[in-house]
Amino acid sequence: MQGGPAVILVNPQLGQNIGMVARAMLNCGLTELRLVAPRDGWPNPDAEASAAGATLVLEEAKVFPTTGEAVADLQRVYATTARARGMTKVVETPRAAIGGMRAVSAKGQSVGVLFGPERAGLKNDDIALADTILEVPLNPGFSSLNLAQAVLLVGYEWFQAADETPASELVLNSTRPATKGELINFFQRLEKALEDSGFLYPPEKTPIMVRNIRNMFQRADLTEQEVNTLHGIISALWEKRR
Amino acid sequence: MQGGPAVILVNPQLGQNIGMVARAMLNCGLTELRLVAPRDGWPNPDAEASAAGATLVLEEAKVFPTTGEAVADLQRVYATTARARGMTKVVETPRAAIGGMRAVSAKGQSVGVLFGPERAGLKNDDIALADTILEVPLNPGFSSLNLAQAVLLVGYEWFQAADETPASELVLNSTRPATKGELINFFQRLEKALEDSGFLYPPEKTPIMVRNIRNMFQRADLTEQEVNTLHGIISALWEKRR
Repeated sequence: MQGGPAVILVNPQLGQNIGMVARAMLNCGLTELRLVAPRDGWPNPDAEASAAGATLVLEEAKVFPTTGEAVADLQRVYATTARARGMTKVVETPRAAIGGMRAVSAKGQSVGVLFGPERAGLKNDDIALADTILEVPLNPGFSSLNLAQAVLLVGYEWFQAADETPASELVLNSTRPATKGELINFFQRLEKALEDSGFLYPPEKTPIMVRNIRNMFQRADLTEQEVNTLHGIISALWEKRR
Repeated sequence: MQGGPAVILVNPQLGQNIGMVARAMLNCGLTELRLVAPRDGWPNPDAEASAAGATLVLEEAKVFPTTGEAVADLQRVYATTARARGMTKVVETPRAAIGGMRAVSAKGQSVGVLFGPERAGLKNDDIALADTILEVPLNPGFSSLNLAQAVLLVGYEWFQAADETPASELVLNSTRPATKGELINFFQRLEKALEDSGFLYPPEKTPIMVRNIRNMFQRADLTEQEVNTLHGIISALWEKRR
């Protein structure tokens, strides 16, 4: 969790938004918050109320009078903007930028990301202090993000880049996938019940009906427990009734 | 922009959060919002205030009495949870799930994503209506997301999966990268000024000094305009002064 970029809010307005930023940061394992001349002073009780428990981030936040002072000890700075605004500068998507950010960070160098105030965004003079512009690809007709949302997307990409959660996994709770033998055993019992009940009719259609039913159950990725449940269902619906 | 998943909020509490969800949805090009028994009724003026212009999404929102009715016309349903909670079900990361979601959607089938109420999250009976659980990998010590943040991360992955923004790009505003000939011309003028001023000394170190200075400027990816600016700087600092 260490070594994540510092989040630098330039002239943030609402304490509520600063608190939501702290929450989004901690969701992504980021803890270093810097505030440049927050409009309503610091500390701000509104921030604590909306941080939903991320008070650690707020307590350790540092306040600076200017953006220059807030980035002075950093070695790589990114500026988030909605549009590049006439500067000759590298613009990257957050997803692409994270690779470089992590590489710099892994060398022990310090990284920060600038976020502008709620309405206006960063000033051009602030952007000129940055190495790279970060621009989140979004709906071109409605791309203006809430401050905490912008921080979340950058933090999310930071976190995902090192996360090892399996992309897709069948969660088994104190059970295991059924073996093919258990499945076949169930199929045979089901097919006997279907035959006895007159469902598998006419005989020349039986093989294709059986295959379709087997395929349907194969697709369900059944567990041992679920196969036992199905045995119980056959027993309740047919065998006991008979 | 068409064909995105429906966002289904089950028992949302605060109108403010519903508005922020609408904004996050539109940021990602999603427009279909469904509300299951919103606590404070519908429409809700707090939602409009926080939607920041995403009123289209709110105006077209549909209200349902139960989750079952809200998903009845859908063919694939995902449930967002913080933990799988003892169910045998496939759990996917949003990034991994988007592939399947887009594949289903491209076949003309309808997709929806369930989000639970602010405090409690989805009930197990709601989750049982879904095909797949979506779980966002986040800081395990602080993983509870604000409702709109959860919607944003799913919408963001949906949008990114089809976005063609270049990952990294040097934005040039009405100029172009300098040609190597323009650069060499500048290097020679600079080196002459440095030699005349006595900077390139002693002579045996000159070649390595010249190479280092050339490499520094090569790394800056200069534009034609910037090379002209540098010519002006040499002229101002040395040639005119002489």
